[in-house]
Amino acid sequence: MSLSSSILESACAELEEILGDRCTTAQSVRDQHGKDESWHPSCPPDVVCFAKSTEEVSKIVKICAKFKIPVIPFGAGTSLEGHINAVEGGVSIDLNQMNEIITVHSEDLDCVVQPGVRRKQLNEFLRDTGLFFPIDPGADASIGGMASTRASGTNAVRYGTMKDNVLSLTVVLPNGEIIKTGGRAKKSAAGYDLTRLYIGSEGTLGVITEITLRLYGIPEAVAAATVSFPDIESAIQSVILTIQSGIPVARIELLDDIQVDAINKYSGLDLPVQATLFLEFHGSDLSVKEQSEMVDSICQDFGAKDFQWTTQAEDRTRLWQARHDAAYAAKALRTGASIWATDVCVPISNLADCIMQTKADMDESTLIAPLVGHVGDGNFHLAFVLDMDNPDEIAEAERLNSRLIKRALSMDGTCTGEHGVGLGKKKYLKDELGEGAVGVMSALKLALDPDNIMNPGKII
Amino acid sequence: MSLSSSILESACAELEEILGDRCTTAQSVRDQHGKDESWHPSCPPDVVCFAKSTEEVSKIVKICAKFKIPVIPFGAGTSLEGHINAVEGGVSIDLNQMNEIITVHSEDLDCVVQPGVRRKQLNEFLRDTGLFFPIDPGADASIGGMASTRASGTNAVRYGTMKDNVLSLTVVLPNGEIIKTGGRAKKSAAGYDLTRLYIGSEGTLGVITEITLRLYGIPEAVAAATVSFPDIESAIQSVILTIQSGIPVARIELLDDIQVDAINKYSGLDLPVQATLFLEFHGSDLSVKEQSEMVDSICQDFGAKDFQWTTQAEDRTRLWQARHDAAYAAKALRTGASIWATDVCVPISNLADCIMQTKADMDESTLIAPLVGHVGDGNFHLAFVLDMDNPDEIAEAERLNSRLIKRALSMDGTCTGEHGVGLGKKKYLKDELGEGAVGVMSALKLALDPDNIMNPGKII
Repeated sequence: MSLSSSILESACAELEEILGDRCTTAQSVRDQHGKDESWHPSCPPDVVCFAKSTEEVSKIVKICAKFKIPVIPFGAGTSLEGHINAVEGGVSIDLNQMNEIITVHSEDLDCVVQPGVRRKQLNEFLRDTGLFFPIDPGADASIGGMASTRASGTNAVRYGTMKDNVLSLTVVLPNGEIIKTGGRAKKSAAGYDLTRLYIGSEGTLGVITEITLRLYGIPEAVAAATVSFPDIESAIQSVILTIQSGIPVARIELLDDIQVDAINKYSGLDLPVQATLFLEFHGSDLSVKEQSEMVDSICQDFGAKDFQWTTQAEDRTRLWQARHDAAYAAKALRTGASIWATDVCVPISNLADCIMQTKADMDESTLIAPLVGHVGDGNFHLAFVLDMDNPDEIAEAERLNSRLIKRALSMDGTCTGEHGVGLGKKKYLKDELGEGAVGVMSALKLALDPDNIMNPGKII
Repeated sequence: MSLSSSILESACAELEEILGDRCTTAQSVRDQHGKDESWHPSCPPDVVCFAKSTEEVSKIVKICAKFKIPVIPFGAGTSLEGHINAVEGGVSIDLNQMNEIITVHSEDLDCVVQPGVRRKQLNEFLRDTGLFFPIDPGADASIGGMASTRASGTNAVRYGTMKDNVLSLTVVLPNGEIIKTGGRAKKSAAGYDLTRLYIGSEGTLGVITEITLRLYGIPEAVAAATVSFPDIESAIQSVILTIQSGIPVARIELLDDIQVDAINKYSGLDLPVQATLFLEFHGSDLSVKEQSEMVDSICQDFGAKDFQWTTQAEDRTRLWQARHDAAYAAKALRTGASIWATDVCVPISNLADCIMQTKADMDESTLIAPLVGHVGDGNFHLAFVLDMDNPDEIAEAERLNSRLIKRALSMDGTCTGEHGVGLGKKKYLKDELGEGAVGVMSALKLALDPDNIMNPGKII
């Protein structure tokens, strides 16, 4: 869909007045802002603006509101459901120049950052303070994007998701007004929870321009472990029992045999090509040892024989880098292929059933799809390895994903554990939550963004 | 404010048709439903309905919506800011007969309960499963009320608040429609966070009729401790260092000398009349020992000499019962007195300043006000011991509370850590969050409840 060129020209003139050459319509820049890391086709915006401050974002949004032009906030571009694709054209606000870590309150275990700060940048910066920010979705995402999609990842089993680790936000509303959703108190009961309303709202209710994050002390001891199983069900049962036993693992990740094979090849590891768990333990020396011994014992009960643990930083780094490269490893299984990542999450007692039925589906399909999962939370991903020019393969992925989501919903789960709705999950939202709840979401959207300029076409 | 009697009569006739004698206008019942445990004057509703199911609540709300009559959800009546006072009259929906624990999914560490279930009832019920629900605001509140006010209390320093421990809700909307805000997956990124929108909304956006809660394994070991300090600042500094050191205390409560004196008298303890911490540790035998040794050492560095700990269940129960009776103990300091509880929360690095300045205020005042606090979260309460028939005392409490809130806000804190806004904190909300954020709240309220029938006069 394209906007009237005279409206666009008028808006551009006003935007250029504020931003100079940080407002551009160059095709190459628009193309860079038309697509995230998902399978969804590119939709470039009409204009890209590079903002440097909350006040600039406010001014940009005010101009867009005046001309009723769509606004799409853009961070690292690592989202996975087409969140930043400009399906109705408009102005992409690139926030990467807002990448300042404004304040670290180490004595309060919090910090204030701009939305373009990347998670790795933040942890590099924090290193000397003895603190860290645990949320780790794999990609080196921007903190603004992570807040906008309610991201989580490998550490969520212990530290929660973005919803649990943001104290407050500064937001530019769809009319350009700037609000703060709270202070730095660790808890508050002061009215509606606007912080949580904006976390996961995917840019559809405003632009997040400042984030106050909770931080944690770097644990005294960190140990990582790998353990492989005779079959995937044993691995899953070990996870379920570990969680049910209340062992506070910091990470517990499942990789199926196909995924292990892929990362062996991609990352030069030599793990047995079997269903495998990657684990991490945080705590005191004593408690890390205690936790890992308990998990080892559980895994042995399910037939695992090679529980290997390490406290060496370089070994841990190598392991988690390989885990984070899982999608690239999957992609490398087939030349020129693309990845389509699924994202269901179910109550943990249903995890074995859900994964086993899904594996059975995959056994009957011609598609390849390695499986990885944040299984401590009941969340797992298939990575369909696809030729995006082959409509039959896309249709097959669509069919399998649809069956997977239906299965997860029948097990009281969700169609998206952490990737968000974007474009890809819109059609499943009513199946999951019902007409009524989605109606409430529509009413909230209409109340805050009556002209539907904020990232239109997403979520609802 | 009173409603037209003809409208009320028509509504009552329809309500009685559904509820029979569970709909009443008896003065004594109305009086029981006109007031919570706060200092706010009683405002009885016109009608009280005792609902037995979500469907009944839906029918009641539909009738009220048709006649545009206010609806006030009523749980245990233990709120502290006038949340259930019917300031514009209307229908109080008493949810105490909806007190069923519907399902416990022990393998998933969650359960589904009706809103009238009390927290003690739930933990009694859970005992044989080896699980518990940690949120403990002191009073034996209803789970529905705790969700509605975003309650927290003594365990929040380790287990978070209601916002962290509710997986999903069933809600009757202001038009009577029934929605579910989510499933039982431990995390989800499926659209706007309606669960968190309703937690803390104080009955102003709908009636919560079912709650899915997170549960936790009862720790292998639990130890409690008391420790007294030469002065209150040393106690606070010990808390700050304990939290900053990342020691995962389950409870860390401060009582000033006035409060210790009050509970000694009320609960028959013989603690030294000095600033005191009550602590609790959860974990394995090893980790509980390790935690308490670390805290003991910190406290000694700040001059404490009598760190005493116990793993005996009866000693712990006696200690926490005394802590929970703090408000009653304060009340007993003066015959016929009422309690007005303040509720600020600040970043922990500001806690010592905030408390010391507040104590200085109190030293200059004629009012008595014991101090207790969930200090690990930076949250503390003064309990003004008042003669509510003496306008001078009320004015003095108002003045001191107002100064306290201004102080907390200047320290990046909140006017309410856990009690909610209700009637008492409405006038401070704009000071805390600004016109813009409160404007967003008003827009949300208008979108979901255009006729303003849901608990009118609260929050906004």
